[in-house]
Amino acid sequence: MSDALQALKARLADVHHLSMAGAVLDWDQQTYMPAGGVSARADQKATLSKLSHQLFTDDKTGTLLAQAEADLKGLPEDHNDAALLRMARRDYDKATRLPEALVEEISRVTSHAQEEWAKARAANDYGAFAPWLERIVDLERRTAEALGYEERLYDALLDQYEPGMTSRRLDEIFGELKRQTVPLVQAIAENADAVDASVLQRDYDEEKQRHFAESVLRDCGFDFSRGRQDRSVHPFCTHFSQNDVRLTTRYDRNFVSMALFGSLHEMGHGLYEQGVSPELEGTLLSNGASLALHESQSRLWENLVGRSRRFWNHYYPRFQETFGATVSDVPVEAFYRAMNKSGPSLIRVEADEVTYNLHIILRYEMENELLEGRLSVADAPDAWNAKMQELLGLTPPDNREGILQDVHWSIGIMGYFPTYSLGNVLSVQLFNKAVEDVPSILEEIEQGQFSSLLHWLRANVHRHGRKYLPEELIRRATGSPLTVQPYADYLRSKFGELYGA
Amino acid sequence: MSDALQALKARLADVHHLSMAGAVLDWDQQTYMPAGGVSARADQKATLSKLSHQLFTDDKTGTLLAQAEADLKGLPEDHNDAALLRMARRDYDKATRLPEALVEEISRVTSHAQEEWAKARAANDYGAFAPWLERIVDLERRTAEALGYEERLYDALLDQYEPGMTSRRLDEIFGELKRQTVPLVQAIAENADAVDASVLQRDYDEEKQRHFAESVLRDCGFDFSRGRQDRSVHPFCTHFSQNDVRLTTRYDRNFVSMALFGSLHEMGHGLYEQGVSPELEGTLLSNGASLALHESQSRLWENLVGRSRRFWNHYYPRFQETFGATVSDVPVEAFYRAMNKSGPSLIRVEADEVTYNLHIILRYEMENELLEGRLSVADAPDAWNAKMQELLGLTPPDNREGILQDVHWSIGIMGYFPTYSLGNVLSVQLFNKAVEDVPSILEEIEQGQFSSLLHWLRANVHRHGRKYLPEELIRRATGSPLTVQPYADYLRSKFGELYGA
Repeated sequence: MSDALQALKARLADVHHLSMAGAVLDWDQQTYMPAGGVSARADQKATLSKLSHQLFTDDKTGTLLAQAEADLKGLPEDHNDAALLRMARRDYDKATRLPEALVEEISRVTSHAQEEWAKARAANDYGAFAPWLERIVDLERRTAEALGYEERLYDALLDQYEPGMTSRRLDEIFGELKRQTVPLVQAIAENADAVDASVLQRDYDEEKQRHFAESVLRDCGFDFSRGRQDRSVHPFCTHFSQNDVRLTTRYDRNFVSMALFGSLHEMGHGLYEQGVSPELEGTLLSNGASLALHESQSRLWENLVGRSRRFWNHYYPRFQETFGATVSDVPVEAFYRAMNKSGPSLIRVEADEVTYNLHIILRYEMENELLEGRLSVADAPDAWNAKMQELLGLTPPDNREGILQDVHWSIGIMGYFPTYSLGNVLSVQLFNKAVEDVPSILEEIEQGQFSSLLHWLRANVHRHGRKYLPEELIRRATGSPLTVQPYADYLRSKFGELYGA
Repeated sequence: MSDALQALKARLADVHHLSMAGAVLDWDQQTYMPAGGVSARADQKATLSKLSHQLFTDDKTGTLLAQAEADLKGLPEDHNDAALLRMARRDYDKATRLPEALVEEISRVTSHAQEEWAKARAANDYGAFAPWLERIVDLERRTAEALGYEERLYDALLDQYEPGMTSRRLDEIFGELKRQTVPLVQAIAENADAVDASVLQRDYDEEKQRHFAESVLRDCGFDFSRGRQDRSVHPFCTHFSQNDVRLTTRYDRNFVSMALFGSLHEMGHGLYEQGVSPELEGTLLSNGASLALHESQSRLWENLVGRSRRFWNHYYPRFQETFGATVSDVPVEAFYRAMNKSGPSLIRVEADEVTYNLHIILRYEMENELLEGRLSVADAPDAWNAKMQELLGLTPPDNREGILQDVHWSIGIMGYFPTYSLGNVLSVQLFNKAVEDVPSILEEIEQGQFSSLLHWLRANVHRHGRKYLPEELIRRATGSPLTVQPYADYLRSKFGELYGA
């Protein structure tokens, strides 16, 4: 091995371990940390990020990287070391392009802005948040300028979360999604009573919910010797290595979907991390390829598997046995319909499979307009409400249920929302290809068996970690670029049947 | 503030946060980490220690320290900054005196030695461990030479765990302890049947044990908004700040003492950390003053409070209510006697209040003899057994229950054992002084009230953190140096009554 490569790997390993240590501190904070621990924990995390950033952006890293690139010239593109250098170069250029003063300003402004946003939302007072949003839009613009882009400001921001994706591509993808989804949403709304979801809101014992969900996770292939599930206020998945993947969930005694589909969702993320090739462990390639790829895995298990009729044909008897009288009067078909109820709503995080992407498109359009100065912060609430009416046929009664609902802008992550929808689109494209390659997957789901599906995902997606850019990974896995049609077909077929639409 | 002091403080804060982050990783490893996480966790902890050590021992730290010392010359000795510089100087000199090659060799040898020790103990094969012990004794000698000492090799090692203590002082203290304890042990052994401890081994529901112990911890003043208790295989107390103190315990359904007195013991450590002055938080003074001082707190709550008649006069009704039929036939006096059963035994960690220190004296004598070459590794088992006979009147049937019982030597910590006994001795000296100052403490214990005792400990011990060397702290708290007599009197009075000895 080249000396420079060896030294670079050792240095990147330290950076990686610092970041994993930070993840442990985060996990603890959200699961078990007593209230008193907050202040010291913030200091500890700040030290870890600072040292990790310093070590990574140090000139020495740049010198080693350049030397290793020279030493390894001509290595086949899909050699792990070539991939490592490609991604290290990407990350290094991004990290060193942002001036330290800007990074500090972002950190200072967003930590205030998040507090102000929380207060403004509680008080339904957009005016109190507006000056902060103004500053954040300005910071995002300066970030985009510093990072650099070819066509539009948005591309620089987007690339941080979805490497290689551009707003030109997103315009096509979201245009197509909108064209296909809006009429479906309208058709469903006209037949809203076709599905009754009230069974989900009966009384479900929490301990039984936990037990049922964990048994499903085990069946799906989540390895509890290399991971665990705990409780937290906001569910998430994190990992400290591919052999230590932590899921969290929350329970609502009167809404069984929360823990049930929430667990399957986080497990999708977790299976991805557990499935990365051991060769990549401990490097910056040991990670999902992008946020959209990650979301494709969580959505695949949550929706394509977990909200399917096949899945419940197998699990509903166990579910009925677990919850006894609570659901003994409900046939499997009614339960299946309930969990798939769809309809326009105001809050993104509560949206269903059909309407969810319209919430994202709204945000994508607004972020672009704000960044490019085509929309002012003052006019933003009206623009939000007009778009809600256009896309979902609803107008929020106040800004709390409108423009103030999401934390994202207050913490300075514009360009992030689209990854949710890309994940939805990809989940179907990948699932369809898996079934095309291994048709028995569908029958296996009906038997509560998931090994063929998991095996396909491991072989075609998980094991590569972050070795390829999303576009390349999707092409390798499915033979084609990201495409909306499978997702649109899936929605029309599933919800057309449910709603006679 | 002097610029150098300010820069030094910032640097030491980073070192501190790295070390606290390492403590979080340790805690997680021992409580919740899935088995698969071991290998990556070792790498993460190694990176944190390496970076923390590098940052602390860097020449820049030395320069800032020297400059700050010059800037602050003449500051009163008990000013926090003066104390910070004193302790930073102590730590810095120690950390920079050990050659890196030696530190690495110790780490390499002990990680093997610990494994070999575990195997040797399981196989009762001292011969397999002997070559490792040989290497460790040699490494300990070289460590002592590198650290430096005035009179004896042992002093250099001891000072790492008990700053300022010397073997000259220990010879006096342990000589006195031995003189006063050995006859008491013999007298108790002659009347062994006076106490029946079988009630402790009845069937105690684990969840009830947890609930009872936690309620006691709350009464004693452990602040659960600034700490928590979890399960682990080996109980411990750690902290990530004075506002985040973690206790662990373990439960044995058929031995109620384990969780009950184990929880009180760890809580004693925890109360110490929770009680450090907020002014010292985040610095290297936010810590107990020494291992002996720490152990004095755990022993005080475990033994002076928890194994006292007064305590159980209050808690036994609640205990009986909790465990129902398990103890309904047992009067409080019988329960009190059971928890205080004493008698010579082979295993240190199972020893009682009277015999415990004799196990320590044995180890102290042997460590000295091995270090100074007066005893060979080959002859050590015989020496061990002869000392057991001399001190406790027992001979181990094999080395597993003799010289192979403790992990300490295999991990390279010679000079550590004495702190346990110093803690025992100090626990009584401090408790007596508290009662002398605030006589109502005794009646309060009988009411399940501990605030006067905790207040005294906070004011005289806890709040100072690591600001003073143990000797100075003890003098400030009690008006005299560490002294054996109160402990000897306590044992003779308590166990003399129990055993008519």
